[in-house]
Amino acid sequence: MDEEAAALMQKLMLSDYGNPSSLHRKGFEAEGYVRDAAKTFAGILWCDPSEICFTSGGTESNNAAIIGAALANKRRGNRIITTQLEHASVSSPVHFLTEQGFEASYLDADSRGSIDLSQLERLLSDDVILVSVMHVNNEIGSLLPIEEIGKLIRKKQSSCLFHVDDVQGFGKLSLIPKNACIDLLSASSHKLHGPKGAGLLYISSRTKLSPILFGGGQQKGRRSGTENVPGIAGFALAAGKMYGRLEENYKHMEALKDLLLSELQDLEGITRNGGDVPYIISLSVKGVRSEVLLHALEDRGVYVSAGSACSSNKPSVSAVLKAISVPEEALSSTIRISLCPGNTEEEIRYAAGCMREIIPRLRKFVRK
Amino acid sequence: MDEEAAALMQKLMLSDYGNPSSLHRKGFEAEGYVRDAAKTFAGILWCDPSEICFTSGGTESNNAAIIGAALANKRRGNRIITTQLEHASVSSPVHFLTEQGFEASYLDADSRGSIDLSQLERLLSDDVILVSVMHVNNEIGSLLPIEEIGKLIRKKQSSCLFHVDDVQGFGKLSLIPKNACIDLLSASSHKLHGPKGAGLLYISSRTKLSPILFGGGQQKGRRSGTENVPGIAGFALAAGKMYGRLEENYKHMEALKDLLLSELQDLEGITRNGGDVPYIISLSVKGVRSEVLLHALEDRGVYVSAGSACSSNKPSVSAVLKAISVPEEALSSTIRISLCPGNTEEEIRYAAGCMREIIPRLRKFVRK
Repeated sequence: MDEEAAALMQKLMLSDYGNPSSLHRKGFEAEGYVRDAAKTFAGILWCDPSEICFTSGGTESNNAAIIGAALANKRRGNRIITTQLEHASVSSPVHFLTEQGFEASYLDADSRGSIDLSQLERLLSDDVILVSVMHVNNEIGSLLPIEEIGKLIRKKQSSCLFHVDDVQGFGKLSLIPKNACIDLLSASSHKLHGPKGAGLLYISSRTKLSPILFGGGQQKGRRSGTENVPGIAGFALAAGKMYGRLEENYKHMEALKDLLLSELQDLEGITRNGGDVPYIISLSVKGVRSEVLLHALEDRGVYVSAGSACSSNKPSVSAVLKAISVPEEALSSTIRISLCPGNTEEEIRYAAGCMREIIPRLRKFVRK
Repeated sequence: MDEEAAALMQKLMLSDYGNPSSLHRKGFEAEGYVRDAAKTFAGILWCDPSEICFTSGGTESNNAAIIGAALANKRRGNRIITTQLEHASVSSPVHFLTEQGFEASYLDADSRGSIDLSQLERLLSDDVILVSVMHVNNEIGSLLPIEEIGKLIRKKQSSCLFHVDDVQGFGKLSLIPKNACIDLLSASSHKLHGPKGAGLLYISSRTKLSPILFGGGQQKGRRSGTENVPGIAGFALAAGKMYGRLEENYKHMEALKDLLLSELQDLEGITRNGGDVPYIISLSVKGVRSEVLLHALEDRGVYVSAGSACSSNKPSVSAVLKAISVPEEALSSTIRISLCPGNTEEEIRYAAGCMREIIPRLRKFVRK
């Protein structure tokens, strides 16, 4: 986590600990931190601060967007369009809604991890009330053409809401909701060196949304519950820093990704999946089980993932890898390497060196 | 906030920052903090650690309990019983459910802020699937007879679930779910000197609950979303400390409350509402508007509330005060003083002195 953000949170926890809803000065002071955070995000998203709603994280943001949009707009239609590439915090609420009588249509993924706009155009019938797609895929780092999707929806079915799960893009890429006709956009704090337990949902002023958490009516009734003031302020500080160095960060990670891939190029049987952004690198490593490689690497202080960390400890087969037609035998041999702006060339050379040493050895084991 | 809890969170944010769902050591280490926190709460509630589910706070816990219980049990019935005394994070989800076809029955409040068990007994028909009541009232500090309520429900309608909103009791009073036939119990971290943005829901092993947040299936599918590890660990540490000194704390706050009331006894026209617990003191101050008194006191560094801080800045008339038949003219003249174990006699004498000085002066203004 960002050290300045952690220090700010410490101050808010120990000194400026008011409840934003209290009428006295301590409350007003706490409310000021929340208001300032909303302004920071409004600056990043080129929107009005009133269009920012704070949540407990990306999962809540996605649930609030999808379930909230469906419940608020069910009189207009009952169909939701999404893709085969989504994170469980999008696909699971969509599944929940189908149990409540809504219908879902799924856009196919191509082998690069993108979608076909003409399929979307065909599916955009009058009964579609929501399209929900992710910006950057969390497992393979592929990019969806958000602006083209948004403009197509607006042209074909202007009352249909457009939700973007931007958990993996926010803080690393610029995406302006109004330019891409986005009505709802989810972001998470701990993906950009902010604290866990904080996230946001951008809700455009035209969007009708039912809340999913009811209570004291905080945040204009859109999300009840005492605001997590330190979490929100830490999130805003970390996000502001990421957006202050967006291009440098991206170029730096691009260079690190190129270095890693070039350091690994002599190793046979390694395929990168997806990969439009530099900071999510999905590698299928022929003949080596992901978990075995993961544990061998962690012994050397290199932490990688087997699939999505969000799938709660269950090492199940990745739906995303299947959707982009990764061959059967590669499904259990795929790791994900995530980069951040703080990574160094030295770390990349070290990690690549570990892989060059470990992978051939693990393959020998398997052959014996 | 508790300083040790804040220091622990700092460590977790900066050093032990893993995602509990990651398969590597950093993930395992983070998962350990969550597991240890569940053990702490299991010790406090005399339950199994698997019965503890972490949330983003009291509002989410109450929503998850009420909406989750209703959705999971709708085949058995569609009626919910609650009281006229509940916090908005209970009454609002109940209201939401009535819009979805459920029925709600409300127990009347008596003038002390309690309920009539015989009314509950009459209302417990076969179609009741959930009873939701609070333990300690957040505005007037009245106590409901939770054990008697729980035993009555179990006897009369054993399949009916019993939810207790214990946000104002947890950390200050002992309430063991199994002794009181409680199936669901909500608690909040920031009410006991833990961080904002954390809470828990006790879910007894017999309870069928639908989740309200869907996604990666964390916490056995009961609450998806990356766990707020620092928040959870800070909550557990703060709660452990409160329960380690439960009786001393209570006696100390009892003495402070007695001191405050005796220091104010010469002031005419002051009535305490409710008031079974010492740490929530609701005072109607004849002839003085709550907000005017609140602002005059904050100028002297004494922070009190006008009604519930949870009602999001809207100084509206309190439904709780109305339910206990506080006279019309007192509704806008009521403040709430909250005590905590860290308060001192000196602070109480000072606060009482301020009130003795300010109240007669404000009354003169009004008379002019």
